[in-house]
Amino acid sequence: MKTLLLHQAAYDRMKRRLKSFSQGVDFVTVTDDEIYRRPATNEEIDLPQPHAAFANSDIWYGKAGGRFVKAVMTSPHLDWIQSSAAGLEHPVLVSMGQKAGRYTTCHVQAEAMSEWALWMALDFMRKGDERRTNKAAGLWRRARSREINGSHWLIVGLGAIGQAVGRRIKALGGQVTGVRRSGGTCDHADTVLTAVTPEALGQADVVLLCLPHTTATENMADAAFFAAMKPDALFLNLGRGALVDEAALLAALDAGCPAMAGLDVTRAEPLPQDDPLWAHDKVMITAHDSSDTPGTDGRIDQVFLDNLARWVRDEPLHDIVDRSAFENAPDVDWSAR
Amino acid sequence: MKTLLLHQAAYDRMKRRLKSFSQGVDFVTVTDDEIYRRPATNEEIDLPQPHAAFANSDIWYGKAGGRFVKAVMTSPHLDWIQSSAAGLEHPVLVSMGQKAGRYTTCHVQAEAMSEWALWMALDFMRKGDERRTNKAAGLWRRARSREINGSHWLIVGLGAIGQAVGRRIKALGGQVTGVRRSGGTCDHADTVLTAVTPEALGQADVVLLCLPHTTATENMADAAFFAAMKPDALFLNLGRGALVDEAALLAALDAGCPAMAGLDVTRAEPLPQDDPLWAHDKVMITAHDSSDTPGTDGRIDQVFLDNLARWVRDEPLHDIVDRSAFENAPDVDWSAR
Repeated sequence: MKTLLLHQAAYDRMKRRLKSFSQGVDFVTVTDDEIYRRPATNEEIDLPQPHAAFANSDIWYGKAGGRFVKAVMTSPHLDWIQSSAAGLEHPVLVSMGQKAGRYTTCHVQAEAMSEWALWMALDFMRKGDERRTNKAAGLWRRARSREINGSHWLIVGLGAIGQAVGRRIKALGGQVTGVRRSGGTCDHADTVLTAVTPEALGQADVVLLCLPHTTATENMADAAFFAAMKPDALFLNLGRGALVDEAALLAALDAGCPAMAGLDVTRAEPLPQDDPLWAHDKVMITAHDSSDTPGTDGRIDQVFLDNLARWVRDEPLHDIVDRSAFENAPDVDWSAR
Repeated sequence: MKTLLLHQAAYDRMKRRLKSFSQGVDFVTVTDDEIYRRPATNEEIDLPQPHAAFANSDIWYGKAGGRFVKAVMTSPHLDWIQSSAAGLEHPVLVSMGQKAGRYTTCHVQAEAMSEWALWMALDFMRKGDERRTNKAAGLWRRARSREINGSHWLIVGLGAIGQAVGRRIKALGGQVTGVRRSGGTCDHADTVLTAVTPEALGQADVVLLCLPHTTATENMADAAFFAAMKPDALFLNLGRGALVDEAALLAALDAGCPAMAGLDVTRAEPLPQDDPLWAHDKVMITAHDSSDTPGTDGRIDQVFLDNLARWVRDEPLHDIVDRSAFENAPDVDWSAR
């Protein structure tokens, strides 16, 4: 019997669907009270030695993280980690990947993230700030809105996120230009470019970054990038904070081009309270949580359940990360935590 | 040669497309400086006696309205008025309709209005108020969002507006129940009901009214209506203010069900500054301007141009209002204005 560790909340949510695995898998849970438990009998247990573990947002954004990582990192027979994250940027993920026989990722955050982009664009085009000021003052004052319908979007990065945004914008009547190095065509973009051009920046009502951070993408949104945008355009970042020269962004907003910025990611996270991005009234910031919805949880659960079925049948898992990705893991003594 | 009166801004916008009519139509304009002009020669002229006129938002929301109405109402041979409005609720529209041989309306506001509903819903589901408070305080604090994807909408009224909203929500993965007396099926709704039911109200994450005001619809959103909604639901009104018992809405919001309301229309318009709707933090108000976009202007211009082509060829006009609609017009002496 193999042991699988997951958060109590994830277990509760999937209880019915996990039942069919109970003959072959000993499920153990960890709670935000930092207790290990065998949920089938509700008994409290000592440090489990899991063969597999589901590292999802219940773990990372609750209080069970330390206990979860300790059980994983001290287990003598860790075979598989299912992560809810797409990337490996956190050192804890790298350590777990190095420890585990197999490490699988998850790429279903795009659906929720794409609605963040739509929200930001609509609030900008509908003049949300001006209207909320009027509302607070009790002023019945007409204002003109712009429309997603007919708007031009430049989506830099045509992975899962870029395509999820493009699909929605096209469904709403917008025009989508996508950028990806490999070029080609894409169902969710009217035009695909292989690089960002000043012409493309100059035509867009909304410019959205949804690329990973690499040496090639670092600081790609710099003073020249912003200067090439339309003055009444919106800049959005769903990728990584390091894609943006934040001082150049603030200077560009002060100069009136682009008109506004929406950031779900920043160079420093959490963004320090004294960072000038917070104080700028043409910047909206969310705490790298654009994917945090019950819908995303459900889709991640499904990825886990699909891989779980493969795991118990000894079939190849989906979205396995190549071992070379974990070569530079930091050396941390997890047993001491 | 027939004379057609329109706003200078509308003329400027359509200049190229109006050229083909210049052999048969003497275009005259009115400006926000309250001057009549013959734009082909730029000469200032005295009070024109138009055969036709285009009464669009440039007229109503600028300063040319008085001059426009005076020329229309004193013309001895007014044959056709093209209005940019869908309805006839303003007495000036009724007076002009009574005066004109033919009066045509316009029903293309729905596209822009549907984006208002999407904006309101996304700002609600993304916890806009909480996030803006965090942003203003410089607080990096995660919050959970909900998604349009998978959300349930009850759209009360399946005319142009209801269908435009339904089409967008379905494209974004939502579930749409529409309500119209005639029932039947609709491409933009998953289910069509013939009346609002407590069950349907209880299933919806967003309830949207987009009905006209009649004796049958007056105060339809009352205490029982709100009590049947889900506590975490959003109430939206794109129809008419008189559909809503506003005291009952405020009491319902205070009781926590529904969670929030977005109103583009109110019973009194403009809404007086001391109205308690303004002060309630669970109410968002816009000034009956959800359709006010350049996109709507362009679509209305096209309706006018299509009818203009019919008018010069003596063909039947589209969207003619039956004369009986103007029977109860107020008796106003426009020549004195």
